[in-house]
Amino acid sequence: MTIKLSAGERLDDLHRKGYKIIQNEQSFRFGIDAVLLSGFAAVKPGEKAIDLGTGNGVIPILLAAKTAGCDFTGLEIQPESADMALRSVKYNHLEERVRIVQGDLKESRALFGAEAFEVVTCNPPYMIDHHGLKNTDLPKAIARHEICCTLDDVIRQASGLLKFKGRFYMVHRPFRLAEIILKLVEHKLEPKRMRLVHPFADKEPNMVLIEALKGGRSRMKVEKPLIVYREPGICTDEILEIYNH
Amino acid sequence: MTIKLSAGERLDDLHRKGYKIIQNEQSFRFGIDAVLLSGFAAVKPGEKAIDLGTGNGVIPILLAAKTAGCDFTGLEIQPESADMALRSVKYNHLEERVRIVQGDLKESRALFGAEAFEVVTCNPPYMIDHHGLKNTDLPKAIARHEICCTLDDVIRQASGLLKFKGRFYMVHRPFRLAEIILKLVEHKLEPKRMRLVHPFADKEPNMVLIEALKGGRSRMKVEKPLIVYREPGICTDEILEIYNH
Repeated sequence: MTIKLSAGERLDDLHRKGYKIIQNEQSFRFGIDAVLLSGFAAVKPGEKAIDLGTGNGVIPILLAAKTAGCDFTGLEIQPESADMALRSVKYNHLEERVRIVQGDLKESRALFGAEAFEVVTCNPPYMIDHHGLKNTDLPKAIARHEICCTLDDVIRQASGLLKFKGRFYMVHRPFRLAEIILKLVEHKLEPKRMRLVHPFADKEPNMVLIEALKGGRSRMKVEKPLIVYREPGICTDEILEIYNH
Repeated sequence: MTIKLSAGERLDDLHRKGYKIIQNEQSFRFGIDAVLLSGFAAVKPGEKAIDLGTGNGVIPILLAAKTAGCDFTGLEIQPESADMALRSVKYNHLEERVRIVQGDLKESRALFGAEAFEVVTCNPPYMIDHHGLKNTDLPKAIARHEICCTLDDVIRQASGLLKFKGRFYMVHRPFRLAEIILKLVEHKLEPKRMRLVHPFADKEPNMVLIEALKGGRSRMKVEKPLIVYREPGICTDEILEIYNH
């Protein structure tokens, strides 16, 4: 299949079922965070899943490749990113399983109705709007800073979209862990499983993967650390497995 | 110095400045949890510290050995344990620096006044009263199950005892992490530093060390994992250092 790439775009291999994805250095390119989240999230046969702020659609496309779920939605506010995602879905012939919607996650209830999904995933912007420098490039800044949505927006919307006992999967930065747990519980999403991601075994974590259960009881499982590099430049077997299988 | 040991008691070496401690197999014997908490907690010169539910006084005695603090209090509800702690304090000639008080931590404000300490430490009972089997032996059960105090009691009292910007150090089980963070924030103790303790590098954590700051802002540091065993039966260098230096 031929594909029309716009200026700055490239087609990258996802190492899954031959799937490829359109990326753009200037606007949106997925990181290890999205890949690890798609490895951490579980979608069972018959379940409907939505990814909030899907960017170029990497998470629903990877989940379509990795899981038995048959109904994935990616919601993205930026028209250019949503268009990239849509073209990638078409390129991979996933139109039957993956739907891309351009819209604001703060309007997700109006767009999809309440309690419409078994699974919600999100790789949200990590940085609080007023902290750190913003990218001069707005598309990247929107993906990284809380410009279009806050952590509270994401968690509130995730809770509203989930059915009772539905599961929310998020990747974020450990420095916001207390706030994340507070907001999850505030919105009836009980943290049930957490995994910290460390660049090296003896370094502090730079990502946290968290699973929360709508209406769950308070008790969580902290999993063994996920280590990215065995030594500089060489990934651990577990990371290679997440990327390649 | 000679010391009178009651039935079931023994005198153990703390590997610190020649200090020894009285233990009792039937009632209270400290675990690695207390040692790791005393390694995690910082007490600066001139600061007053209190340990809630001190058992045989292991935490204030270790902190007196390790830190420059000069005013330590251990509060213990069980008279037999408080008496053991007191005799250990005397044996080590620490009466000038370590005070043992027999009493209920729920009365700590009446006992010590509000905002009287820079540092509060606690190795509380981990198990919720209604879960799991209780020890038929009540002294041990009180140390392990929430019989005399709940997590909420501990955190509420810690907050009341701390001065503004005072620090609370606790060791607990990771399965209660969400509840711990919620309760800390509810009582104005902001989680600032957390370290997970793993029996082996590739196993899930079985302890969590947490530092919270009274009146702090929301932002926390998750530290590198603390690994106990390098291989079965052989501790890591870091654990040996915490135990021996």
